[in-house]
Amino acid sequence: MRISELSERSGLSVPSIKYYLREGLLHRGERTSPNQARYDESHLNRLRLVGALTDVGGLSVATTRELLAVIDGEHRPELQELMGLTLKSIDGENGARSDVEEADLAEADALTERHGWHVHPGSPLREELARTLSAFQRSGLGLDREWLDGYAEAAEQAARRDHDLVAGIDDLDEILKIVVVGTVLGERLLATLRRLAQAGEAHRRYES
Amino acid sequence: MRISELSERSGLSVPSIKYYLREGLLHRGERTSPNQARYDESHLNRLRLVGALTDVGGLSVATTRELLAVIDGEHRPELQELMGLTLKSIDGENGARSDVEEADLAEADALTERHGWHVHPGSPLREELARTLSAFQRSGLGLDREWLDGYAEAAEQAARRDHDLVAGIDDLDEILKIVVVGTVLGERLLATLRRLAQAGEAHRRYES
Repeated sequence: MRISELSERSGLSVPSIKYYLREGLLHRGERTSPNQARYDESHLNRLRLVGALTDVGGLSVATTRELLAVIDGEHRPELQELMGLTLKSIDGENGARSDVEEADLAEADALTERHGWHVHPGSPLREELARTLSAFQRSGLGLDREWLDGYAEAAEQAARRDHDLVAGIDDLDEILKIVVVGTVLGERLLATLRRLAQAGEAHRRYES
Repeated sequence: MRISELSERSGLSVPSIKYYLREGLLHRGERTSPNQARYDESHLNRLRLVGALTDVGGLSVATTRELLAVIDGEHRPELQELMGLTLKSIDGENGARSDVEEADLAEADALTERHGWHVHPGSPLREELARTLSAFQRSGLGLDREWLDGYAEAAEQAARRDHDLVAGIDDLDEILKIVVVGTVLGERLLATLRRLAQAGEAHRRYES
């Protein structure tokens, strides 16, 4: 197909496609004349993947390129490695962070250890958890262990569903897309459902 | 106490305090000379509440003023009413939204009905849920009913904890603070825990 059809079927503009070609996120088409090339389904699939990573996932072009290099590389990554890389990419794009107190890190570690979650000591998520717990404290809302564990169980239940989405899938492109889209959209979904459940719970507790 | 001490104890700068006084978010102190006033614990408490609503909750000054007017008013609001107003304020500050398809709204309604959540037809959350479900679809990730129900149950478990935070508290200032701080920080907490649980679950599934 020509670039115009590729644009139509992918929903991306021609300038966007040309940009992805220049940036190396999309492989070149087969040249049919000095200024025309032919594209196939492989281009369409790759564009859909790139769109999911950048638009929905909010990943930068540089990070997207790195992830694509991993799945295109000679060494086929393990699912675990790919998921780790993807999640790290999403977390890494969240900008600069302030310092964290040792005491808050210790509280964060105690929580993840109680739930048997394997966390790398250098993980930005570990610091983010410590920072959030500290923000609760500073706002005068101390959270006890039981309360936190309830929240952690809710998170675990959602995370198990997230993993179910990739279970049984072999195509790395597809897995990459699911992990990014599922992580980003899943976060929005869980946040919205929680607000709705809060309202529902309020209705149940105080209206009757 | 003088304004300098009020600043020190609240952690807010003198210009910020003067701004809140001008905007009517903080009641005037007792005038002791033409350019000096005395403040007491009631000012400190109110400043802490305003700080939680604006800094942590991200509410605008106008919305904060509306909420304070409700709790300062002659008519003492019901807890349910206050929570509804607060959650509506937080949701309302999320900016402009695009159109939603009827089919997506129907799917959102089916989900909330299955869980017995009472949702107002005009709720921005209803539209947000429809929009998120549609984004999943467009990304090629169809979610089946069982999967969605699992997510909704996770959200419900977190929401129940959120309500536990205000159970047994009578002070409206305090409740307002808890609802805003708990909703905003709770969202961050749940999102971070979910990412950690994802990593933990990946380790459990693929490492052993």
